[in-house]
Amino acid sequence: MRIYADHAATTVLRPAALDATRRAAENAFGNPSSLHTAGERASAALADARAAVASLLGAAPDEVIFTSGGTESDNTAIRSAAEHGKATGRRHIVSTEFEHPAVLRTLEALEKDGFTVSLVRPDERGIVSAAAVETAIREDTVLVSVMLAQNEIGTIQPAGEIAAVCRSRGALFHTDAVQAVGHIPVDFHALGADYLALSAHKFGGPRGIGVLLVRDGAPYTPLLLGGGQETGRRAGTENVPGAAGLAAALGEAIREMPAESVRLAALRDGLIARLTEIPGVMLNGDATMRLPGNVNVSVPGWSGENLVLRLDALGIECSSGSACCSGDEQPSRVLRAIGRTDDEARGSLRFSLGCTNTEEDCSVIDSALRLIFSET
Amino acid sequence: MRIYADHAATTVLRPAALDATRRAAENAFGNPSSLHTAGERASAALADARAAVASLLGAAPDEVIFTSGGTESDNTAIRSAAEHGKATGRRHIVSTEFEHPAVLRTLEALEKDGFTVSLVRPDERGIVSAAAVETAIREDTVLVSVMLAQNEIGTIQPAGEIAAVCRSRGALFHTDAVQAVGHIPVDFHALGADYLALSAHKFGGPRGIGVLLVRDGAPYTPLLLGGGQETGRRAGTENVPGAAGLAAALGEAIREMPAESVRLAALRDGLIARLTEIPGVMLNGDATMRLPGNVNVSVPGWSGENLVLRLDALGIECSSGSACCSGDEQPSRVLRAIGRTDDEARGSLRFSLGCTNTEEDCSVIDSALRLIFSET
Repeated sequence: MRIYADHAATTVLRPAALDATRRAAENAFGNPSSLHTAGERASAALADARAAVASLLGAAPDEVIFTSGGTESDNTAIRSAAEHGKATGRRHIVSTEFEHPAVLRTLEALEKDGFTVSLVRPDERGIVSAAAVETAIREDTVLVSVMLAQNEIGTIQPAGEIAAVCRSRGALFHTDAVQAVGHIPVDFHALGADYLALSAHKFGGPRGIGVLLVRDGAPYTPLLLGGGQETGRRAGTENVPGAAGLAAALGEAIREMPAESVRLAALRDGLIARLTEIPGVMLNGDATMRLPGNVNVSVPGWSGENLVLRLDALGIECSSGSACCSGDEQPSRVLRAIGRTDDEARGSLRFSLGCTNTEEDCSVIDSALRLIFSET
Repeated sequence: MRIYADHAATTVLRPAALDATRRAAENAFGNPSSLHTAGERASAALADARAAVASLLGAAPDEVIFTSGGTESDNTAIRSAAEHGKATGRRHIVSTEFEHPAVLRTLEALEKDGFTVSLVRPDERGIVSAAAVETAIREDTVLVSVMLAQNEIGTIQPAGEIAAVCRSRGALFHTDAVQAVGHIPVDFHALGADYLALSAHKFGGPRGIGVLLVRDGAPYTPLLLGGGQETGRRAGTENVPGAAGLAAALGEAIREMPAESVRLAALRDGLIARLTEIPGVMLNGDATMRLPGNVNVSVPGWSGENLVLRLDALGIECSSGSACCSGDEQPSRVLRAIGRTDDEARGSLRFSLGCTNTEEDCSVIDSALRLIFSET
């Protein structure tokens, strides 16, 4: 029996999400833009999914735009704010050194287009403080983009405080909440963000569907142009089955969250305690301000990728860094940002625990790592 | 029993596609970027889908980029060519008056960015000749974009001839093949296009997944930025279940095509014969150079939308214009382009026949229309 401990890369599809997707594909298969009954039924199913997502995340239905996933949502939000910056003569953006590539690559493209980007360095616990963000904000700052939960080390950022700083300074605020939604409570209006990106497959929904929440009144420029779908904000025939699956997965994840987050946090803390007892192994990121399922440790002197492959051979699936950067032999950019040495950053392992994992799994992971260390 | 005759808007999900999607979600659920066994299995499933699509469409596997659908594929191709145009000082694009909004809206955005766009008018049969395209090409033409099959009237364009003209004149050629793939034979290399866009849900695959074929060596600029997925050409966690479903649907559609296209063309020709016997009803688009399932007629003096709603009340689902433009009371832009009057263009009906339709359906459609006309 293999142990999958890479739920942050992608997690298993929830049966409820598969059911909702299949039911929509069968009963609401029409094109929501069509005027006939099949179209109306599809349109109603899409409206239901939109209303459910809005209600689950403290947003209004009109603030929910269905996209193809987290990357498209992040790209669209940042480019929307940048267009607003061009129109208002503000070409400065604040972000952090450890954002997801969907954010950082987009910011690099904007730098070529005349924008200046300031990347705030997180502290050694892996937290970006509101004060650090405030220091970086300038008169011409149009956007601040700080993720809600870090994808490698799982640290939870003070996004509400950062949003308040942005509001007081007249900057828009975007948060990549791809790792957070479905895992910790998220309320869009209470948070005070202008844009929030999420992806269904990170909480047991289908692949290829995500959401961008856009605060009513926030600047918006469509990224995909064509038909007038999503009230002109995202062209392309709507993925109604995907939206239904996303809504079902999100509903279940949020209903299970009170119990499941406590269960996972206990597994996490137990695994951290076991692993950090091994000489040389050190925890990356704050011990408590982190996602319930995230365990990230450095093992100086080791290659993280080598460890991933050795663990895989023993039936344990985890990652070094995030999946998006796998195959990249460089030391983790994220761990360098929080002050780890190259050696420490190269020897990193991320175990992201989820619905399939048990206390027994954590014990097996611990034994396997000790075995690997003892063999060499 | 209702009659669904709007298969060009979207068609029913093939059971084989649903099976392939579900199997991939279960057996290849990992993130293809992950190094462990679950990741490798997902990566292998994605490679299988890519190889299948390439082989079915006469392309090389490296030329297949999975996207979220036809709109993203069209947008990406046109913007890639435009970036190449900027780099080489060529800012002229040729397209047609009756392209899909995913093309026309993107061209409008490029016009604001300094490009000049020449839109060729189709002839009254709904065909854009290679000669007409050649006349429009200039020294500084970087791209020609002509759809393979028109989405409202179903006319099939001489894309191979147009591609040859483009090649001889040094212009890139993009074709929106969203309505064509899975319905008529398409061979990417034989066609000679640089970019070809397709969407799974038009041939019984899942929603939210499409492909952009990009000829090896053709200029390319990613639209979505982030992780290095699709060899750096399309960021975002790969939709492996969607790709598997797309490949399964495409394989089945192409295997069934020899028999199914003959069956549908016979239904189409029978329905056209019946409807054009009704006084005032006229066929739009060439009678033979059209998709096997497409019937598009004008009924002067009537509102197409009104007819769609009356037919829906009688259990028949069809469209006026394309789904992407529904709710728009303007006369069809496409029909105006082929020389129909406003009155003729306003009173248009599209029946797009597919796997669910029978000779009996066509008889019912004919009777229903005659009933509607007789009542007023």
